[in-house]
Amino acid sequence: MPPNYKIGIFDSGLGGLTVLKSIKKSFPIHSFIYLGDLANLPYGDKSQDSIIVYSKKIVDFFIQQNIQLIIVACNSASSVALKSLQSIYSIPIIGVIRPSIKTALKNTQTKSIGIIGTETTVNSQAYNNELKHLTNNSHEYRISSVSCPLFVPIVEEGWENTEIAHQIATKYLSNFKDKNIDTIILGCTHYPILLKILKIVFNQLGYYDLNYIECGDAITNQIKKLDLNVFQQPSDQFYITDTSRKFNKLANKFLGYKIPAINVISV
Amino acid sequence: MPPNYKIGIFDSGLGGLTVLKSIKKSFPIHSFIYLGDLANLPYGDKSQDSIIVYSKKIVDFFIQQNIQLIIVACNSASSVALKSLQSIYSIPIIGVIRPSIKTALKNTQTKSIGIIGTETTVNSQAYNNELKHLTNNSHEYRISSVSCPLFVPIVEEGWENTEIAHQIATKYLSNFKDKNIDTIILGCTHYPILLKILKIVFNQLGYYDLNYIECGDAITNQIKKLDLNVFQQPSDQFYITDTSRKFNKLANKFLGYKIPAINVISV
Repeated sequence: MPPNYKIGIFDSGLGGLTVLKSIKKSFPIHSFIYLGDLANLPYGDKSQDSIIVYSKKIVDFFIQQNIQLIIVACNSASSVALKSLQSIYSIPIIGVIRPSIKTALKNTQTKSIGIIGTETTVNSQAYNNELKHLTNNSHEYRISSVSCPLFVPIVEEGWENTEIAHQIATKYLSNFKDKNIDTIILGCTHYPILLKILKIVFNQLGYYDLNYIECGDAITNQIKKLDLNVFQQPSDQFYITDTSRKFNKLANKFLGYKIPAINVISV
Repeated sequence: MPPNYKIGIFDSGLGGLTVLKSIKKSFPIHSFIYLGDLANLPYGDKSQDSIIVYSKKIVDFFIQQNIQLIIVACNSASSVALKSLQSIYSIPIIGVIRPSIKTALKNTQTKSIGIIGTETTVNSQAYNNELKHLTNNSHEYRISSVSCPLFVPIVEEGWENTEIAHQIATKYLSNFKDKNIDTIILGCTHYPILLKILKIVFNQLGYYDLNYIECGDAITNQIKKLDLNVFQQPSDQFYITDTSRKFNKLANKFLGYKIPAINVISV
């Protein structure tokens, strides 16, 4: 029997499950392995060197599992570790930043793009750097980035549809006033859960026809270009590197369906 | 020259600096070593086994530094690792939970005590268990615990005196309505930064004469009973196990003065 090639997706926590959810919609007959590196979360507060060490261990683990494609579903790891990983391993490895920027470039008419993310992601300038890399003349484009540190805890508290979430979103997103953006990149894998309130607030700010870019959808477009093998019945596996009540509580909400079994491992 | 005995304080992040601040007020001529285990933060999301491993490494590091007393300024480590540490090491080790409960028991008249903390701390039932341990008849007492996961990010965002903080505090603290508490334990080392807004909201809820218990003050009372050596001019040292923009940005606010130098180490 030929091996059952899989797509490996990892994140420091459970946010990457929203990416898996998006990708699975377009690739329902593929098998996935998800790894949440809970023992080392959150990557956003760790140094570049630490994140590279964590990521390498996970890639090595994936390679042992007959992985044919790896998705780094974590903004911090994508911005600081992806290049190192791609230079070491021959297996295709996709991060969340380039696909989102590519999709934004395809969609924007005003050439003014908004980005929301965690403080670490925004400070890293990873999206700005990728834009420079992908365009001949990055000065044509205007990027406005706003860090929204309260968004992740709001989602994890289950308050995404409350008046408090509305006020916090209004406080953050008001920074986009008069920026004439037509495209907003959701630069954190928790943010798709907030999409409804983001749309309400952006509408109130006069942004009625924004392109909302989720990295899961953006990555899906990129994967479609790859020639992936499907051999067996799809079967997904879920691993975490430490136990967590929060993961158990929120995973189904992020993924959109119940995870059959979660395995705790060391990598 | 005799060694310069020091007091070691550790936390997973910077919250423990509020504990150091409180203790230093009463022990200005003592020397302190602070260690923020940023490489492994937040402990609250880690398993008991992991937290014990981290804590042991830190205690070993402290012992090499002529430490005469160790303060575990972290609720998660105090609740799940303190007993293991105390059974292994002969050096005195104090956590944050017992001193707070002791102070609460001394202060309460209504025998109804409130506790606010992170989700992990509240779920751990560590304060309830300590109360049972310290009293012959714990049924005399009523403990009401409320987890407040948004408080830490609110503090880290610098929003502690905003209308949003007020609303979030109101949402959480309304759970204490009709509980007849006269004592509230701030069960997280970030919360002293929120003291002003907590007092406003508790006043609005009709709690005008609450005893606010910060673990730093509670620990200070316990240390006073120990016979600590002072040999040299006091000099404090600050260590972190990973670099962090957030630590640099917020440390002075938590500590109340500028940290002269921060050393990054592995333990």
